[in-house]
Formats: sequence, structure tokens, C-alpha cells
Amino acid sequence: MLPFSRFVLGHRSIPSLRHRRRQRRLLSISSSPNVPLSHPTYMIWASNTSLGKTLVSTGLASSFLLSRSSYAEHRKLLYLKPVQTGFPADSDSHFVFSRLCSLASLRSSGGPSLSFSASNSVIKSSLPAAIALSGRNSLPGERIPAFCEESKFLRTAGTGSAELVCETLYAWKEAVSPHLAAERENCAVPDSLLVEMLEKHLTASLEGVFQKESKQDFCIVETAGGVASPGPSGTLQCDLYRPFRLPGVLVGDGRLGGISGTISAYESLKLRGYDIVAVVFEDHGLANEVPLLSYFRNRVPIFVLPSIPLDMSNDLVDWFNDSEVVFNSLREIMVSTFSERIQRLNDMPKKAGDILWWPFTQHKLVPEASITVIDSRCGENFAVYKDRKGGSITQQFDACASWWTQGPDAALQIELARELGYAAGRFGHVMFPENVYEPVLECAELLLEGVGKGWAARSYFSDNGSTAIEIALKMAFRKFCNENDVLPVRSNTGGRCFDLKVLALNGSYHGDTLGAMEAQAPSSYTAFIQQPWYSGRGFFLDPPTVSICNNMWIVSLPAGMHSGDLYNVVTIIQGAGGMLLIDPLFQRVLVNECRGKKIPIIFDEVFTGFWRLGVETAAELLGCVPDIACFAKLMTGGVIPLAATLATEAVFDLFTGDSKLNALLHGHSYSAHAMGCTAATKAIKWFKDPKSNANILSEGGLLKELWDPELVARISSHHSVQRVVALGTVFVVELRAEGNNAGYASTYTRGLIMKLREDGVYMRPLGNVIYLMCTPLTLPSTCRGLLVKLLRRLQQFGEPSS
Amino acid sequence: MLPFSRFVLGHRSIPSLRHRRRQRRLLSISSSPNVPLSHPTYMIWASNTSLGKTLVSTGLASSFLLSRSSYAEHRKLLYLKPVQTGFPADSDSHFVFSRLCSLASLRSSGGPSLSFSASNSVIKSSLPAAIALSGRNSLPGERIPAFCEESKFLRTAGTGSAELVCETLYAWKEAVSPHLAAERENCAVPDSLLVEMLEKHLTASLEGVFQKESKQDFCIVETAGGVASPGPSGTLQCDLYRPFRLPGVLVGDGRLGGISGTISAYESLKLRGYDIVAVVFEDHGLANEVPLLSYFRNRVPIFVLPSIPLDMSNDLVDWFNDSEVVFNSLREIMVSTFSERIQRLNDMPKKAGDILWWPFTQHKLVPEASITVIDSRCGENFAVYKDRKGGSITQQFDACASWWTQGPDAALQIELARELGYAAGRFGHVMFPENVYEPVLECAELLLEGVGKGWAARSYFSDNGSTAIEIALKMAFRKFCNENDVLPVRSNTGGRCFDLKVLALNGSYHGDTLGAMEAQAPSSYTAFIQQPWYSGRGFFLDPPTVSICNNMWIVSLPAGMHSGDLYNVVTIIQGAGGMLLIDPLFQRVLVNECRGKKIPIIFDEVFTGFWRLGVETAAELLGCVPDIACFAKLMTGGVIPLAATLATEAVFDLFTGDSKLNALLHGHSYSAHAMGCTAATKAIKWFKDPKSNANILSEGGLLKELWDPELVARISSHHSVQRVVALGTVFVVELRAEGNNAGYASTYTRGLIMKLREDGVYMRPLGNVIYLMCTPLTLPSTCRGLLVKLLRRLQQFGEPSS
Repeated sequence: MLPFSRFVLGHRSIPSLRHRRRQRRLLSISSSPNVPLSHPTYMIWASNTSLGKTLVSTGLASSFLLSRSSYAEHRKLLYLKPVQTGFPADSDSHFVFSRLCSLASLRSSGGPSLSFSASNSVIKSSLPAAIALSGRNSLPGERIPAFCEESKFLRTAGTGSAELVCETLYAWKEAVSPHLAAERENCAVPDSLLVEMLEKHLTASLEGVFQKESKQDFCIVETAGGVASPGPSGTLQCDLYRPFRLPGVLVGDGRLGGISGTISAYESLKLRGYDIVAVVFEDHGLANEVPLLSYFRNRVPIFVLPSIPLDMSNDLVDWFNDSEVVFNSLREIMVSTFSERIQRLNDMPKKAGDILWWPFTQHKLVPEASITVIDSRCGENFAVYKDRKGGSITQQFDACASWWTQGPDAALQIELARELGYAAGRFGHVMFPENVYEPVLECAELLLEGVGKGWAARSYFSDNGSTAIEIALKMAFRKFCNENDVLPVRSNTGGRCFDLKVLALNGSYHGDTLGAMEAQAPSSYTAFIQQPWYSGRGFFLDPPTVSICNNMWIVSLPAGMHSGDLYNVVTIIQGAGGMLLIDPLFQRVLVNECRGKKIPIIFDEVFTGFWRLGVETAAELLGCVPDIACFAKLMTGGVIPLAATLATEAVFDLFTGDSKLNALLHGHSYSAHAMGCTAATKAIKWFKDPKSNANILSEGGLLKELWDPELVARISSHHSVQRVVALGTVFVVELRAEGNNAGYASTYTRGLIMKLREDGVYMRPLGNVIYLMCTPLTLPSTCRGLLVKLLRRLQQFGEPSS
Repeated sequence: MLPFSRFVLGHRSIPSLRHRRRQRRLLSISSSPNVPLSHPTYMIWASNTSLGKTLVSTGLASSFLLSRSSYAEHRKLLYLKPVQTGFPADSDSHFVFSRLCSLASLRSSGGPSLSFSASNSVIKSSLPAAIALSGRNSLPGERIPAFCEESKFLRTAGTGSAELVCETLYAWKEAVSPHLAAERENCAVPDSLLVEMLEKHLTASLEGVFQKESKQDFCIVETAGGVASPGPSGTLQCDLYRPFRLPGVLVGDGRLGGISGTISAYESLKLRGYDIVAVVFEDHGLANEVPLLSYFRNRVPIFVLPSIPLDMSNDLVDWFNDSEVVFNSLREIMVSTFSERIQRLNDMPKKAGDILWWPFTQHKLVPEASITVIDSRCGENFAVYKDRKGGSITQQFDACASWWTQGPDAALQIELARELGYAAGRFGHVMFPENVYEPVLECAELLLEGVGKGWAARSYFSDNGSTAIEIALKMAFRKFCNENDVLPVRSNTGGRCFDLKVLALNGSYHGDTLGAMEAQAPSSYTAFIQQPWYSGRGFFLDPPTVSICNNMWIVSLPAGMHSGDLYNVVTIIQGAGGMLLIDPLFQRVLVNECRGKKIPIIFDEVFTGFWRLGVETAAELLGCVPDIACFAKLMTGGVIPLAATLATEAVFDLFTGDSKLNALLHGHSYSAHAMGCTAATKAIKWFKDPKSNANILSEGGLLKELWDPELVARISSHHSVQRVVALGTVFVVELRAEGNNAGYASTYTRGLIMKLREDGVYMRPLGNVIYLMCTPLTLPSTCRGLLVKLLRRLQQFGEPSS
């Protein structure tokens, strides 16, 4: 990426404040709506305005409700128009309503009567829209809506068991883009409210309007303008509706130039993780379907509608009749794709149990019913499929941070998707050694001036924390051997070398490849049954730890301490070892001691780097620097694997020489892959910039406090709680536990975890330790909500279930 | 991804043949044009037709050539219109030419005369366009072009040192999309020819028209229609021009709905790896720049042009005058962004040498001048920056396959970019254990029914070949211990366990983490200086190998063979060990022997899987199956790291039980990450489908022969060649070498490799072994071209340089 300067020109100046405001709004899409899956629900998107979205909605409604070929009793169609401008002169829900009424009466004449009822209503309208509405004669049953008050403008027609419910959720008077209408009519709607309202009306359809037993319901949500047209707050509609991730139909463009617009609109939707089940457009005699078919290869079916007559005098009745066959097929695709999706979602747990092999998981302890089907994620939330109550998608906060990797909120996720698409389009993957390409150089620059600031000179890339540690060990061995004149000593039988050891901490975890395992003290992870080659090549210390008990920080001292030598892996917080926060003073003393004895220092920052603990690097907490440090996890913003081992120039120099055999001969196929470096570059910049990260107070500085001190105090004082650690994005609770309830293999907290999942919080236990982990971008209000839920469940914990 | 059925509806049926033909065309974008970087060259894109691309081109040309504020002698602007329809009534190059002539004469009046000359020409036109052209009165200097013959329609105006050269490369008469015009006028242009023609005219500008010393040249290439409008062959223009990856200016849409179209067009360009340096659009009073600024956040500057008057009677002179300040600023951005790009490209080798640490590389042996700057890749080709001759981007075939990972051609690369964008937008990364999500399930299904067919029941995911091997070892140990009643035996001094060993091959490489290293025989990679903990825990056999010498397949027998026990890692081809093809019969006998002795069998297919050797899995070559097999590299199509260790259900069962401690406690943060699984799913399906892979003869079957037998014979008979292996996508040549010239650290082939890079073939040596590796999609004609170049350079090899 070339550095673009900030630059705006033209004959209109742009207030920069407004720009700022928009950013905040986008960041605030933390809504987590539930979506019913008891019947098909589709969004109607278009690649531009005026391409006939409402005609497509009407045709689908007609096919669903009025088609003789598929006619059935008790079928209902809910049509929702969340955002309408130009109201009431323009009202798409009224168009659908009135056309369906005409078509129903026409199709009833000359045949058996169609039993059909319909209603149309508007939920909230701006004052100018409300006045315009009241200015004309009211119709029977029609009430005048007040300004942004819950109220209904109702028209009903007919009676019968086939039912059409049309609803406009928000209406403005001016016939312009919603963000302009909202501004000009001084009647804004925050994204969160709009999402909530849409959720309510999608869900209400289940409980009230729709009959529970009916298998014949159908719901259409029609967007406004093009896929990336702004909604009322200025947020693009494709971003605004993303938390629902409803499947969609794209109304394309059959005109000259329409191929391009249709494809680009489709790609914008794909980039946001939407599934598009069909493309439909009006014929303009240009055979646009030919290149579109070529582009879509069998991925998406294409439907061509007859040209719309300029003469609309007969209410398009002939056109709807001519189009009936197309709409019937489109509806069939929509219904069958929906059924296939539900079938697949229902089948997934069994198939997963049959063919997947999860790491760190005893499959026998995971019954099919407890397998979580993750349909998607939006920012910090998983969208989880539940087959209860006819099926639904519910949202759960990813409080395990997907093994402590997660960084993006909804806005960064979209940015990363675009950047990763770009990196794949520009580079895919390219060879690293002896080469240079922009993403790796930019990433290395950011690492050295960020987490490696003040000491690191070189960046060595690999794939994960474990490989980063293996590389760090190789670097440290070379440094130690060089500074301490160690030569290889082989025994006569060959094979065994001079026995270099590490100095590390009991309970620390550095990865699962053999080299990383050898730097860990014996544990469940390293038992003979796991890896017979493990021998534990180190001196392992019991460090003092710090935590909050009864609202007071305390230091827990270990029983004793061995003196050690050789090289030293510093761990700031022990993640897999039970989320213990090691006393920073102890660590600093240890580092200084080792340095004095020519023992190389490695910081394992795989877990702690990039603001995980509230600072860019945990070295800031310790007040000292290493020779070598390892980074991974959050580095790419939590989307793809990449690791970096940073080193001083002194370490690097030990590998230079005249022979290739002196070089560090360690690599992986995708070393420094362009995709990973691109993601890391984007994420690190995003985290450190106060303009994109509201939690950062100054460029690259500290995270603000995310965990409400009063709630932390209450939790740490709870009788079932042993200790608490609250630092940066991490909140840890160790529950009081004894015997089998304590330790890694304990299932003591399972009940608590399951209750919290019902509350929309997806946690994973580490034995009797539970934790919440958020992203560096998560709002303090969201963290507060998590603590409230946790405290409530803790208060029930251990009590007999009612 | 839900499975979409093939489905086309509407009132027009689509010939499926045409669909097929289009695919082939897209696959045929294997052109590799060079791009001069001696002066700024930009593409002008638009989000739709009729948004004023040509006005922007004209404004830029005027700003560059006629602006008093920046006026300089010896400046030239080249305007290229590669594809023009509606010709000659519509001719954008004529528009630019004639407006510039008017503006020049107007601006000369009343001030010092502008020294300005201009020409306009058309290179090739269809017969109807040529006839239409000749039908009107010819102008002085004008010649009539013949049908698709090289010919020029020339008009010149003025004389002077400021020079405008306007060229239309291909013209058709009908004012429709180019693919329709080409079809209707029976005058098609293959993509490769169009790319070649554009390259020629971009490059010719350097040598002929443009002055060599001039720093003041500028080139504009104007596209037709929208960014994804089809070109003459039906290939979308954003795909067609991708091999050039010229930076661009996007002409957006200021109308109602235009925000959406502008953003979507930008995203389509980003998905293909283009850099857009500015967005410009005509004002329609809707302040579209406000939401666009919010979307672009400082990434891209936005320019707003005054409304274009409906009354064009004064040739828009007033409008161009009003717009001058905007075009001047736009031009400045274009010039400065270009300079920054060149500066960065020039700085990259030094910066890379200063802060990167390449794996397997002796930095001291890589002088700054030999560092390759990779600007991008398109399918199989790297776009490499060269600072010679004023700077250029040249194309090199990635014949090292970027450490044997590469799979995509240009078409698959674009598909992968879209799929990866989708996966990031839908999932980012989500937690794997106890969960299931579509990409991991689909990927596991494809692996088990593909490379694991007939034996594998479970898929265990990790990040790279080395971790896949570590996991396979842990599985094999459990199986061996279980079947042979091995119990852990610890010595009194603690730490050492029962000494399980592997049976493996001398020369094999399985990765660089300690566990994978231990399964390798001692070598340069495992020396004390590299990893003091290495001891080589195995019995290592010298296998017989097969190769072609003097056009005959021969088997080379080893000196002897040890009997071994415990477990067995089978390697089909030794990659890092010098590309030796192990005798398949030997391997099969070994597998059968081991199985009889209850020794678990692991296949290391990290290198060989997914058609690398012409078959989906090398097990097909051996005629036997393993208990465990490792896959990585090509699995994701060569874009991001992902590995899989497949196992039988019997192996899996040994890890089930009542305790978590019995489970396989090995994992990585991004285990089974959604991005990797999505890429793998897309790539594997693409490779195995004859509709997308022209090299596959039937669904999932063998690759056709890629290496021309006659050329293979000639190379294998060359006096400097020791042996050749040609199998699947791999072509290996071992050069005769003795002493220091042989072996891993040899630099014997460096000269040969450098010569081939000049030929556009990027190779990397393995000591005295060199190889060509293509993708499973590479056309045999491309492979033939590589062999021809190799043979020519071999014939010069060792000869005294002239």
C-alpha cells in the first residue's frame, strides 16, 4: 500500500467533524440480533436505485400467495421495508400491498375465489412525512402517526387464510438518500435502534402474526437504493444489516453498463459474508445474462424478467402475468435453498462428530447436542445456530476470544476482509527468501517500531507461536554457545549433544511442537502418553503471582526458588497454565540476573502482545527488554495464522558468515506470507490509532480501563471466587475448588459456562478457572454487560437448581 | 457455501457452449506484459458507463500539457483507448484530441503562444467501422484502415514541444458492449493479443514517441464502460488488464444511488489487487462525497467536478476552465503518488536487507543488487521491479512455485481472492474445538473423499507441514504403544523415556520443528549449530531412486539396507533432499513389511499431495495406503498456511476415553481456521474439476502430461546433465558436479539461474539440482516454453561467457 495523503478537493468543503461522527457510528454496530429460521427470510438488494426491487418483492409475494399452481391454505408473507424515503408519495410497502390486492381480485374473477387478506402499516415516520400523510384524506382504519412515535397507518383488504402483512419501519418525506433525509428532517435513527426494530419485527412475525405450525411462511426485507447506499445514520446498508446476515436476492441491471454494476454489487455483498441465492434483472435486449452466467459459473442462478412497459396504465397486470413463471421459479429456488440450508445446519453436529478431530478435546465428553454450530461471526459475536423453537440464529459474545486470537470489531472485520481480498488479488502468496514485497516490509517496519521498539532489529516470520518459540530457541542457543564458548560434545554412541537447558517457569506453556514442549515443565500436555520424546530440558521455577482477592491486589509467593542457568523464557501471564499473572518485579529481577550471566533472554509474547494486557507489549509492564521475543495470535487482528520472532542485531550477526550452513536453516512454506503480513499491518495500525480505536487514548498508548472497577470488586469478593485478574482485555476468575474439581481436566465449571452461553456469552473453561477476553476495540459498556451477566450467574453458582 | 443448483431461467435460453468458451478464454490470460515505470501511467476506470471518463482524461491531459502554472518544455502525454465501440461516431481518443486542440488555441490567444502538437490515430478497426469511417470525407493525412490490419487514421494539429499522442487500439462500429460488438461484427480479439498490443503501445512510448531524458511524460489508458464490463472476448476488463496492474483513477457516480456504485466498483478493483489513487465524480448536488469520505477514511482522496452543463455548444470550454483547479490537483496527486511508489520500490532492497531475516538464507551471500522486489503476482507470474532503463515491471514465471506451494492461475487467483474476502467477511476466524462451521466441515469432507479416500476417517488441522508431522508422530506413537504394549520407562535420573524411534529415509526432510527434525537423518539442517537438542531418533534407510538419464528411466540402488522397526515415514519424493524420486516398489514393500510388524505407517504428502505429482495423492503411485498422512502446501491453492493430518478411525479411537488427558493435547491458535479451510475447499474443487482445470481429463483423475517428451529426452541426454525427473508438475535436473559444486551449500548453478531469470523464469537452486515447478493448471504450452528456455541456457552452461 502506498501512503496516501489526506486530501479532499472540489468546490465544496467537507466538515471534518462529520467525518469523525460517521466513524464512531460505524464502530457502534455492536447490536446482536437474533434471527428466526422457522421460515425463509430474504433480503432484496439491488446494484443501483430504480432497478425494480419492489417489483421483484411484489412478484415474489404474488407467486407465494396467489399462485394457483402452489396454492395452499394458511400461508403468510411478511414484507418489511426498514427504510423508506419520499414518503408517503413513495411507499414500497403500499405498492406491494395495493398490487397484491389488485392481482388477488383479478385472479379470483372467473375462478374459485382466492381467500386473501392484506394489511399495510408504517411504524415510525418523521414529522414532515407524518404531516404529509395527514394532509390528505384519511382512509377507513387509517390513523396518523406521530413523529417517531409507535403508531400505525393501517389499511386492510379482504379476509382469508392467505395473508399479506406489509410494514414500513421508518419513513421520511424527502425523496433522497436516507442519510440526507434523516439529516434534513432532523430525524435520525441510530443503527442500533434500526437493527433492534428490524429484529423485533422479524421475530414478532413468529410469535404473533405468523402461525406457529405453519410451514408456509415467507419473509422479504427490501433494502433502499444500492447495496452500499447509506442508511439513515450514514452507515452503508450492507454494513448496517450485516449482523443479520440474511440470505439475499440481488436485483441486477439489464441496461448498458449493467453487467459491471451487477458484478460489483455482488462482490460488495460477498466481501461482507452474505450469501446471494439468485440474481434477477429486467431485460433490456442486451443479453446481459450471458457474461453474468460466465462470471457466476453455476454459483448463482440468473433470472431475466420481461421488459417493463412504459405504459403503466393497467397497473402492470399484464407484466406480472408474463413474469409469473419467472417469479415462481425464483420463489422455488429461495424456498429450496432455505430448506437445504436448514438441513445442512441440522446435519452439521453429527457430521462434525463423525469426521473432525478437535485439538485438546476428549470427543467422548462432547455429546452431539453440545456441539456448537457457528453460522458466522460479526465483530466480537458468534452467530450460533439453535434448532430449538423451529430454528434460529442467536448471537454469543466470543468471550474465549477464539483461543485468545480475536481483535476485530464489526468495522475492522470488514476492513480486514477488503484488505485480505486485495492481498490475495495482488499477491496470493509469493516466495520470501532473497525477495521483498510491500506487505512483509511494512509489517516488519511496524513490528520493529512497535512491539520491538528500542531493542529489536530483525523480524523472522513463521506460522504460529510454537514455531516462533522453536526459532527463538535456535537463536538463543547460538547466542549462548557463542558467548560461552560451548562446543558440541557427542558421546561415542553418537546422537546426544551437549545438554543445553532452558530456565523457565513452572506452569508456563509455549506450544505443542517438541522443541517448544521441551522448554516447558512436565505437565498433562507433556506426559509420555502425549509425546514419548519429551524430556523437559530445563530448570523450572515457581514464580510469585499477583491477583485480586476480596478487592485487594495480593502477591502469592512460591515455596522456594532454584538457581538456574543457560537461557531464559519469560512469560508475563500464563494462559494455558491457568491464567496466572506472574509478578513483574520477579521477572525483571530474573532478566537482569540472566543478562549478567550471559544467558540470552526470550520473551514469549504470543499471548500478551498487541494490547492484550492493555499495553502494546508486555515489555512495558516489566520495564526491561529481551534479546528475542515471539509474537502471534492477535498480530493479524485474529483472522489468519502468522508469527514473528524478533531479535537484536547482535543475535542476527551470529548467523552471518561465508557459508550457508551458518545461516538459520529453519523455514515454513508460507514464511512471511503476503496475506498474513497484510492482515497484521492493517490490524496493528487500526489498534494503535485513536481514530479507529476508541479505547486508545493517544497514538500507540495504553488501553483505557475496560473492566468496571466496582463490578471487579464485587466479583473478587464473592464467596465462590478464589482470585481475580483484570488486566487489559483479560478478566480471569478462579473459582474455589478442591480435589477433582481443581486442575486442567476438571469439568467443575461446565454448568456455569452453559448458563452463560444461554445469556449470549460464549466462554471456555480452563479447569476451575474461567475468563472473559475481549478485543482491544471492545467498548467498556460491552465489557460491563459481560461482568453483570457473570456476576448474576456466579450468584446462582453452587446453589441447588430451582 | 450452500450448494447451488445449475439453474438459468428467463425468456431467453443460453447456449451452454458459449459459457464453456468464455471459461477457456479467461483461463487463457497467461500473458505476461512488461510495464515501463519511467513515467506515470494510469488507468481510468468508472463505476458505470457515461460518467465522464473521457472528460477526466481530457481534463488531465489539459492540466498536464496546457496548464500555465506547471508549464514546461518537452512534455508529452500518451492517451490510449484500447477498446472503442460506436466508432467512428464515438471516438474517445478523437474527443481528447479535438478538445485539447481547442483548449490550446484558446489559451494561446491573448497570451504567449502554447507550443503544442497533437495526433490521433486508430490502430485496428472492424470492417463495419472501417467502412463507416471511409464513408465520410477523408481529412488531410487520413488513411482508411483495413479490417483488423495495422493501419492508421491520423490527424495532427499544431507543432511544438508539448505533445499529445492519442491512440485507439481496437474499434468496432456498434455502440454496444465490446463483447457484443465483436460478436455482431464477427471481429473478435483474443485477450492475449489485446494485452500484447497494449504492452507494445505502452512500451513503444518509451522508445519512440517519448524522449528518453524527459522526466515529464504521462500516460493515460482509458477503459470502456464500468470496471467489470466485458472486453471484446467477454473477459471482464478488470480481469483482462490485471496482468499490467496499473494504478488507477476511479470515476465515480455523483447521482442518486451513485455512492453504492462507486464503492462497489472500488471494491471490485481492490479484490483484483489494483491500487486506486483517487476517486473523481461530477457533482449532482447530493454531496455524495460525504459518505464516500467516511468510507475511504484517508485511504483515497476524493475530487468533485462541477456539474456538466446540458448545453455543450461551446465545447465545454467554460466547464474545463472551471474544472482546471480540480484537474491540477488530481494530476499532482497522480504524479506524486507515482514518485512515492518509485521511491519506495527503489528503497525496498536496502530496507529488506536491513530489517528482514530470511529463512534458509545466508544474508552475507545476498548483495542488495540481487534482492528481488516483487510488486505483485498474477497467476503463475511474479511482477518484478527492475530499476534498469528508467524502471520497469517485468514478468517472471514462478518456477520455484514459491516453495512448492503454488496452485492458482490468473482465474483461480481471482476466485480465491473473492472467496477469501467472503470468508473474512463471514467468519474471520472462529474457535474450533467442540464447534463446527461450514468451511471446516466442507474441507474435511473433501479431504476424506479425496486424498484420504478409502482409508482416512478423521481430519486433524494445523498450520504447516512441520506441525502436521509432529501431530502424526504423536498419533503413531499412541498406536505403536497400544499395539505393542509399550509402557513408559523412566530412568532414575528422570527425563528420558522409552526410546521410541522412527524408520525413515536418509535424505528426507519433514520440517524444522524439533519433533519433525528428530524424524530426519543427520544433515546440514540438523547440525549442532542449528539445533543442539537434535539427536536423530530413527533408523534411516538409503532407498533406491528412479530418474531419467540419457532418455531412459533407471533405478539407482543403494549400497545396503538396514532392518528397522517402530514406525515408518514414507516419502515419495524427497524435495529439500535434492528432489530424488524414491522407487515406488521399494516403498510399497517397506509399507507391507511394517504393517506385518504392527508398525504404524505415516505418509508425508506435504509436498506430494493434490496433483503435485500428477495424481491427487501419491498413495495412488504406491498402490498402498497409510494409517496417517500429512498434507499442506498446495492444499489451500497456495495462498495461506493450513495443514491436515488425516488418520484412520482406529487411530482416532485410541484417543477417546473418559478423561481429557487421554485426548490428543496438541493445537495451534488458528487450528482449522475458516480462511484456510475456505481456500482449500475452493482450490481442491477447482483442481479436480475438468470444467475449471483443463489439465484434468476426468473428475478427480490424472493430470495430463505437462512436460514435452521430446524436450525431456533432449535435456536428459545433455552432457552437463546427470539425471532428470519429470512427473506431474515437477521437472528436475541434476547437473553433473563434483566436490564443492555438489550438495546443498553449492552455488554452482547460480549463473544458470540468473540467466533464466533474465528469460523471465524465476528459479531457485537446491545445490547442483535445479527444478521447474508449475501449478496443476499450467498449460502444457507454457511448460514447453519453460523447457525450451532451460535447454537453451543449458547449452550455454559451462561454456566461456562471450
